Amino acid sequence: MRAVVKTKPQPGAELREVDISVPAADEALIKVQATSICGTDVHIYKWDNWSQTRIGAARLPQVLGHEVAGDVVEVGRNVKRIKVGDYVSVETHIPEPSDLQTLLGQMHIGENMKIVGVDRDGSFAEYLTVPEVVCWINAPGIPPEYASIQEPLGNATYCLLGEDGDVAGTTAVILGDGPIGLMAVAVARAVGVAKIFVTGLFDHCLDIAKQVGADYVLNAGDQALDRVAIVREHTGGFGADIVLEMSGAPQAAAEGFKMLRKGGRFSAFGVMSESNLALDYNNGIVFKGARIYGINGRRMFDTWYRVRNLLASDRLNLAPIITNIIGLEDFELGFAQMLEIPRQSAKIVMFPNSSLLKQAQNRRK
Amino acid sequence: MRAVVKTKPQPGAELREVDISVPAADEALIKVQATSICGTDVHIYKWDNWSQTRIGAARLPQVLGHEVAGDVVEVGRNVKRIKVGDYVSVETHIPEPSDLQTLLGQMHIGENMKIVGVDRDGSFAEYLTVPEVVCWINAPGIPPEYASIQEPLGNATYCLLGEDGDVAGTTAVILGDGPIGLMAVAVARAVGVAKIFVTGLFDHCLDIAKQVGADYVLNAGDQALDRVAIVREHTGGFGADIVLEMSGAPQAAAEGFKMLRKGGRFSAFGVMSESNLALDYNNGIVFKGARIYGINGRRMFDTWYRVRNLLASDRLNLAPIITNIIGLEDFELGFAQMLEIPRQSAKIVMFPNSSLLKQAQNRRK
Amino acid sequence: MRAVVKTKPQPGAELREVDISVPAADEALIKVQATSICGTDVHIYKWDNWSQTRIGAARLPQVLGHEVAGDVVEVGRNVKRIKVGDYVSVETHIPEPSDLQTLLGQMHIGENMKIVGVDRDGSFAEYLTVPEVVCWINAPGIPPEYASIQEPLGNATYCLLGEDGDVAGTTAVILGDGPIGLMAVAVARAVGVAKIFVTGLFDHCLDIAKQVGADYVLNAGDQALDRVAIVREHTGGFGADIVLEMSGAPQAAAEGFKMLRKGGRFSAFGVMSESNLALDYNNGIVFKGARIYGINGRRMFDTWYRVRNLLASDRLNLAPIITNIIGLEDFELGFAQMLEIPRQSAKIVMFPNSSLLKQAQNRRK
Amino acid sequence: MRAVVKTKPQPGAELREVDISVPAADEALIKVQATSICGTDVHIYKWDNWSQTRIGAARLPQVLGHEVAGDVVEVGRNVKRIKVGDYVSVETHIPEPSDLQTLLGQMHIGENMKIVGVDRDGSFAEYLTVPEVVCWINAPGIPPEYASIQEPLGNATYCLLGEDGDVAGTTAVILGDGPIGLMAVAVARAVGVAKIFVTGLFDHCLDIAKQVGADYVLNAGDQALDRVAIVREHTGGFGADIVLEMSGAPQAAAEGFKMLRKGGRFSAFGVMSESNLALDYNNGIVFKGARIYGINGRRMFDTWYRVRNLLASDRLNLAPIITNIIGLEDFELGFAQMLEIPRQSAKIVMFPNSSLLKQAQNRRK
Repeated sequence: MRAVVKTKPQPGAELREVDISVPAADEALIKVQATSICGTDVHIYKWDNWSQTRIGAARLPQVLGHEVAGDVVEVGRNVKRIKVGDYVSVETHIPEPSDLQTLLGQMHIGENMKIVGVDRDGSFAEYLTVPEVVCWINAPGIPPEYASIQEPLGNATYCLLGEDGDVAGTTAVILGDGPIGLMAVAVARAVGVAKIFVTGLFDHCLDIAKQVGADYVLNAGDQALDRVAIVREHTGGFGADIVLEMSGAPQAAAEGFKMLRKGGRFSAFGVMSESNLALDYNNGIVFKGARIYGINGRRMFDTWYRVRNLLASDRLNLAPIITNIIGLEDFELGFAQMLEIPRQSAKIVMFPNSSLLKQAQNRRK
Repeated sequence: MRAVVKTKPQPGAELREVDISVPAADEALIKVQATSICGTDVHIYKWDNWSQTRIGAARLPQVLGHEVAGDVVEVGRNVKRIKVGDYVSVETHIPEPSDLQTLLGQMHIGENMKIVGVDRDGSFAEYLTVPEVVCWINAPGIPPEYASIQEPLGNATYCLLGEDGDVAGTTAVILGDGPIGLMAVAVARAVGVAKIFVTGLFDHCLDIAKQVGADYVLNAGDQALDRVAIVREHTGGFGADIVLEMSGAPQAAAEGFKMLRKGGRFSAFGVMSESNLALDYNNGIVFKGARIYGINGRRMFDTWYRVRNLLASDRLNLAPIITNIIGLEDFELGFAQMLEIPRQSAKIVMFPNSSLLKQAQNRRK
Repeated sequence: MRAVVKTKPQPGAELREVDISVPAADEALIKVQATSICGTDVHIYKWDNWSQTRIGAARLPQVLGHEVAGDVVEVGRNVKRIKVGDYVSVETHIPEPSDLQTLLGQMHIGENMKIVGVDRDGSFAEYLTVPEVVCWINAPGIPPEYASIQEPLGNATYCLLGEDGDVAGTTAVILGDGPIGLMAVAVARAVGVAKIFVTGLFDHCLDIAKQVGADYVLNAGDQALDRVAIVREHTGGFGADIVLEMSGAPQAAAEGFKMLRKGGRFSAFGVMSESNLALDYNNGIVFKGARIYGINGRRMFDTWYRVRNLLASDRLNLAPIITNIIGLEDFELGFAQMLEIPRQSAKIVMFPNSSLLKQAQNRRK
Repeated sequence: MRAVVKTKPQPGAELREVDISVPAADEALIKVQATSICGTDVHIYKWDNWSQTRIGAARLPQVLGHEVAGDVVEVGRNVKRIKVGDYVSVETHIPEPSDLQTLLGQMHIGENMKIVGVDRDGSFAEYLTVPEVVCWINAPGIPPEYASIQEPLGNATYCLLGEDGDVAGTTAVILGDGPIGLMAVAVARAVGVAKIFVTGLFDHCLDIAKQVGADYVLNAGDQALDRVAIVREHTGGFGADIVLEMSGAPQAAAEGFKMLRKGGRFSAFGVMSESNLALDYNNGIVFKGARIYGINGRRMFDTWYRVRNLLASDRLNLAPIITNIIGLEDFELGFAQMLEIPRQSAKIVMFPNSSLLKQAQNRRK
């Protein structure tokens, strides 16, 4: 089969012919319909410090990718829940059965959890094997480009809903206009956040934010703009109930704690390039009585259930966020678009099969 | 001033001239812009068993009504939060400071809580005095007919959100097509309930349910219709995540427990005419692992805050629910419409002032 | 091996020689150290209506029992988390992977969940096979008689903690002085319930309740005793924050709703002999603003984790509740004690191995 | 009356004769039985940077202190809940009625909340006036030295229980051996935390920690001691479920995030001398899936209710924490003990009345 493979410990990747892997006893083989590009794939593509440490040269060659939708074509002999013909998407976090977190319903952040496309071959290919436990059966009518992005959409949803899901009628700031930030806007609008503020760097993306439901978009690069003051002004002077840090920028995090009202909630999702971040601990956390939730992955499978329901009922306006639908063979173009500054794209979905690609492109018209 | 007064311990009420009451030290005097008719008012109007016991002949004459929006025109000397000119609505539940519930953030269900229009004069009048503690400052642009119905809208919102607010992406059944049931549909749609089922008796009301966001409407009077089976069919065979009992009908409650999935949540809001209700306790509660929330009133003021935010951002489609806007002097007509079977109306809002009435009627066109 | 088997569709059971079953690919074979008698076993022993319907003659012969602690002596080829030599207890609820509840972290109440000792052979035997998924690795130092009763102790803990676990410093009523009620008292005392009321029928059991931490014990059979008034008197006139119905008696449930303060929480655990129970729905649920949790089983494995921690740290006073330690061959005596009225025992633990039995009996001295 | 007054903008305080203030319409006058010294009082006593900015010279002279128990001797004309003769303690946070937080049940962290002994005269005196809203009626039998320390005990309880109260059967680390850290140990023991680790600098205080229930005490000043490894070793290698930062030391906070298991909860209570704290944001918060709660004050009055119940039922072992009971006139001694390094005391309670002082000292014998 064809697959986008990291072959050497250096920037780039290759489209190669590789063997289709045989599913183990507890695994399923999935024929890929659609697979989308995540920021993590870009890190690996660039072979940055994180990739060198986290994956390392010894494990190469490895197939990239983890956001995917496709059809189950073969299952191992111990597979119980999934069957051949099921239309599935894949949860990226592979839980370790012995982890305390797995036993406590937090398998998505288990101590020894593994990640598809990072710790094993991924989805930028015609076929993919994954353990049954991470297969999620999709609602039948959801087009593959939407089914594929359920994984980051789950990030956005979990980040917004936090640990309690109590968001109806609140005010929220979303820091960051990347694809997951934009999805968070669409979700926020669909689930009754009453005022949605978005900050970001790129006009193209902020424009999408408006299309999918933001009430206020604020350019994060504009030095003259007092974003904190604007949020406070439109929240009775108190600040927003909820702040989602989805940019990974220290400045955004610092502003976010100032935008948050006393007693509010902050979801920390974006990964900082420098992990050691100086926070105004006393005023931003202690005296503020803030709740902060570190968000990694999505709940398995509470978040998936909600996302599937929202997609199946057409409650989300995601079309403006899927900006590019391309063939798998055009992956270089896809990565180039992900790396372009200022960004002119949001979510990029690839199709290995040219006829499914054409159908998807027709749905966009 | 003119007021709709229960004068005698018998059905009916009279429009009368009465004195404007003087606000006590901790009270505000409100000039009424709009005041809407609640089912409780109908009970008192009819002078049914509940009214005879709860209010009693000895307290008459008493002004009816409690759903209201208006302007503060005078405040007592100890009033701190509210000032003359504020545009307010009124929370009906007057908390007792010494109640344990008041001290624990549950003042809306305090042991000794009093109710406007039941335990003291109400809002079907040109003016109304209430303690400051139940005044809620409205968002300025909300028209008075919407500001007035925030109180039942708060019922609907609290009933839907329950004690945790975790509703995004779930499936929900609303049992009952009365005005508060219909408001619950509008709220459910706005806050991301992904599948909304409504049961009710009246075509007119079920039609409104569809307009404001119901995905499925089911006639509760149709003996041939297997409502439980339909809900299960559209929820993967498991039943709905959330069931709201808003009808007060034993049959609806019984069906509701069957429509609820194992591990789901049931909000008990509707008051049964016979309080002693036979429930399938083992299967409906224990083995089902159900959570049941008794819902009375609204959270003070968490629910109000969310409702104000949703209204101010125009997230709710309530227009189809406000079916009648009339003058206060036409209260007999209003009650007649509330009592009509089958119902041809939903929410009825009255205006004491004819010029405000005309403006409101013009907004409907 | 020897096993206590239901052989015929009539009251009673037999100690028989049966084959040791071979674990399937995802199962473990456990050598039983201790196995305790549950009320469910008594139902099956008596072959009452419930047993006739739930189990049925066609499935017999079947080994009784499900509360157990023992050692893993063999595992199937797909078992991953458990290994030979592990000292385990068994969760009774066998989840079905496809159930929505299983995917949402509520596998203990899955739509198609199966039960050890009810839907398949149980633990009153020298050996037992169960799926790996229900094996719980015990803390090493916990004696087998305590490890065995973790399953009902988990019921008691989950019933007390409810869906939120927020019990510290509250007041609680436990309705019922059966073994699980008594365990709930011990747990309540250990986790900081500040006032513990217990109602029950048997002096022997109420005496144990006092020993393990009850502040007030109230005889439920005493017509002259106003139990509701006593609870109110000692809770500032408001009623208790939490009421646990663990008796299965309609009178207790009715009293319980009156003992509950407005805004309080009621856990419904006891199964009523008549499922159709008449409740004071309006006053007991709606106007009370009550939260009611149906409790079935225990959280998998959040409850087990807490129970293991509490046992390992010796925080629970359970010794007075384990009243009888006997050999498996004396099961008839055990059932007789369970059926004795008035009860003179609480929890009865059986040992198939006579040397382990002797050790356990010595620990009691 | 006699009072300990900050008279000049420099270190120290004076015992002076000042006028008894007259309660305003919504205030109560309290005759002080006992008043205890808080770290905040020490800051003001030392007149450090924080005090100079937060209070400022212009407001002096001002009476110090805010932890107090006493008797209501006079009430303003609008006071409703409290009456002359009530035995009360005082919540330090005076809520502002208009704050959004006040309306949402978070009045303890209202945007414009004021603090007794910081923003107005305090309790180191024979009498004290406070608004009725912060008066808390004590259980009658609680000795005044315990009633006085309910305010910091509320800090400890809220810090431990966090926003959800779900602590039974968990493992917890308490960073810091100051008086509030020690109280958190006593509370943790009483409410069923199953393993309690404490870190601190002073042998005297760590010894008290053991007395009141710590399972492991770890010297924070011992460079050779790998505290993180010890916590992990005793928590199955995963880390603790809960970490409370109660020391205000950056090193402790950094260690705390490493001691916390993935998916665990961190309560941030201690105020850092440098607010800008460098945290390992990615690993300590995001990837860890941590919940962090900023804790300031106590819930009004949920926390007080629980604390009162626990005290009234004698569930807390606090005696070893109250190390010094002195006369108000010996306040200099009290402050000296608070400032002594290494600490040889924990909580210091002062009595203005010599006969009550003698009684309290006798209770200690």
